[in-house]
Amino acid sequence: MLSEFDLIKQYFQRDLPGRATLGIGDDCALLTPTAGAQLAISTDMLVENRHFFAGADPRCLGHKALAVNLSDLAAMGATPLAFTLALAMPKADPAWLEGFSRGLFELADLYGCELIGGDTTRGPLNICITVFGEIAPGQALKRSGAVVGDDIWVSGTLGDARLTLAGLRDELPIDQDSLALAAPRMHLPDPRIALGQVLAQQGLAHAALDISDGFVGDLGHILAASKAGARVNVDALPAGPALASQETAVRRQFCAQGGDDYELCFSADPGQRDAIMAAAAACGTPVTRVGIIEAQPGLRLVDGAGLAVDLDAAGFDHFILP
Amino acid sequence: MLSEFDLIKQYFQRDLPGRATLGIGDDCALLTPTAGAQLAISTDMLVENRHFFAGADPRCLGHKALAVNLSDLAAMGATPLAFTLALAMPKADPAWLEGFSRGLFELADLYGCELIGGDTTRGPLNICITVFGEIAPGQALKRSGAVVGDDIWVSGTLGDARLTLAGLRDELPIDQDSLALAAPRMHLPDPRIALGQVLAQQGLAHAALDISDGFVGDLGHILAASKAGARVNVDALPAGPALASQETAVRRQFCAQGGDDYELCFSADPGQRDAIMAAAAACGTPVTRVGIIEAQPGLRLVDGAGLAVDLDAAGFDHFILP
Repeated sequence: MLSEFDLIKQYFQRDLPGRATLGIGDDCALLTPTAGAQLAISTDMLVENRHFFAGADPRCLGHKALAVNLSDLAAMGATPLAFTLALAMPKADPAWLEGFSRGLFELADLYGCELIGGDTTRGPLNICITVFGEIAPGQALKRSGAVVGDDIWVSGTLGDARLTLAGLRDELPIDQDSLALAAPRMHLPDPRIALGQVLAQQGLAHAALDISDGFVGDLGHILAASKAGARVNVDALPAGPALASQETAVRRQFCAQGGDDYELCFSADPGQRDAIMAAAAACGTPVTRVGIIEAQPGLRLVDGAGLAVDLDAAGFDHFILP
Repeated sequence: MLSEFDLIKQYFQRDLPGRATLGIGDDCALLTPTAGAQLAISTDMLVENRHFFAGADPRCLGHKALAVNLSDLAAMGATPLAFTLALAMPKADPAWLEGFSRGLFELADLYGCELIGGDTTRGPLNICITVFGEIAPGQALKRSGAVVGDDIWVSGTLGDARLTLAGLRDELPIDQDSLALAAPRMHLPDPRIALGQVLAQQGLAHAALDISDGFVGDLGHILAASKAGARVNVDALPAGPALASQETAVRRQFCAQGGDDYELCFSADPGQRDAIMAAAAACGTPVTRVGIIEAQPGLRLVDGAGLAVDLDAAGFDHFILP
C-alpha cells in the first residue's frame, strides 16, 4: 500500500495558484477570505452501499462527492472558494485513486474551488468533504425567509436520478435509451452555483435550499423554518426528460419525492418573475414556478385542475430511498 | 432508529451565543471571521479499529475526535473558532450519542469552539471533524521555518499514550498503577492551544507541528520542509510519568516513536530561551529543549554523552502503530 504521504502527493497535491495562503502539507491550511465576506461552510459524508453502490465508477464518485457539497453552497448563493477531503479506503488502489481524483478535480477546476487539505486513512470506504464559499453579509439565501404569497420555484428538472435508481434496482421496466438519458443526473449532478449566486446577489429570492432528499421533504424544511405552508401543482414539477415519458403516477412520485436531484428550490416575490426568468436565462439554468407559499401550515399537493393529489395513495409507498 | 433530524436536534443542536452567524439547520453554516484574520483549517477522520478500539468509551471518543483537530490549530498558533462534525454510525445508539456529545462539547466549550454544522449517516463508525481557527496574517507557525542553530523544543511529556497501547495489547507487563497514570494521555489528549497561541503571537518559534505519529517522524516533517537536519538527545525527550519508570530501551523507543502524543514540537532561536520558558510557565505547559537544528541533512539521535543511539537496533521494531 502507498504511504499516506505518497498517496497525497501523487493524487491530490497540486501546485495551483489559488486563494489558499498555505495548502496541503502543514498542520492546517491557511485561507484568507475576502475582507468583509462571510464564509459559507457545508460538510457531507458519502458512505459506500448507502450513498453509492459498491464498485461505483470512481470518476463519477469524485465528481459527485464534491458536487453535493457545492450544491449546498449554491443553495446559499455563495461563491465556491476551497474544500477539504477526508478519505477512508480499504486499500490504496491506484486505478480508483486516479479516477476519483480526476472526477474531483474536473469539477473543482470548473468552479475554481481549491483542495486545501485533508486526511487519508485505511477503513471502510467513506468520503467526507467540507466546502467553503464566500458571500457578502446579508446576501445568503436561508431556508427561513419565505413570505406568504411568494412563488415557489424549482431549477432544472426533477426525478431522473430517482428513475435511474429504479432502473438499477429493477423496480420498473425502463428501456436502455431512457436509462442512458437519465443516468448522468444520478452520477454527475450539476450544482446550480451560477443560479444561486445571481439570486443572492440580485436579492431575487426570499428563501432557498437544494433538493437532495426529494422536493416534498426539502420544501418542508423551508416551510418549517419560515413558519408557513404551501400549495404546489405536482404536474407543474419539471420532470426530467427520461421521466417525462413515464406514466403519471411514477412521474408525480419521482418528481415530488425522488431525491438526489441537486436542483434549487426557492421562494420569491411574484413581482420578481420577469427578473428571475431573465437571470435564469442568463446563467443557462431553466426555472419553473410550481406553487405558492400560504399562511395555512402544511403542504397541499394539487393537480393542474386544483384537485388534491395523494402521492401515498398512488401505490408507490415501496419506492423509498435506502 | 432516530431520524437524522431528531438525532441532530437531540444531541448536537445547541442554542449558544457564538461566532457563527448561522449555525446548524440550513444548507450551510455562515461564519464571519474577524476582519483581516486568516483562517486555519484542519480535518481529521477517525475510523473504528484503526484510530480507536471497537467499544471505546464514547465520551473519550468525543473528546479525542475534537482534541486531535484542536492540536493541529495549536501547532499553527491559531485560536479555535468553530468546527463541523460528520458522523457515520451503524445505528443511532442513544447511550453512545449521549456520551459522545458530552465529551465533544466538554472540550469544545473549554476552547469556545462552536459546532456549526455537520452530517450524520448510517455506516461503519467514522468520525470526521473539520476545525476552524483564526490567526493574524504572518503569525502562523509553519513546518518550513526552522533555521540552522535553532533549539528544538517539545511541550509536556511523550510516550505515555504509547505505553497505554502497549498495556492494552499485552506487549509489555505494565502494572495497574502505571496504566491508570498513563491512560488519560491516550484517551483524553490535551491540545496545547495556549502554548501555540503565545509562541505565535509573541513570535517566539520559527517552526512548529504537533506530534501525532511519533516525535522522530514528525520532526522529520519540519526537517524536510525546512531543508535542514537535526541532532537530538533521546534522553532529553521528556518521558511521561508512567513511562519514566520503564527500562531505558522502552523509554527511548516510546518517547521517540510512540505516537498519539499531541504535544508540540517547535524550533526557536537560542536567544529566545528565557522568553519561551516564561511564556510556557505562564500558560502552565512545561517545555523541554531536546536538540538543535543543523545544516547537515538527516536526524542524528544521541544519548546524554553524545554517543549515537540506534533505536531500531534496540529490538523494538515490532512496536509499530496500527
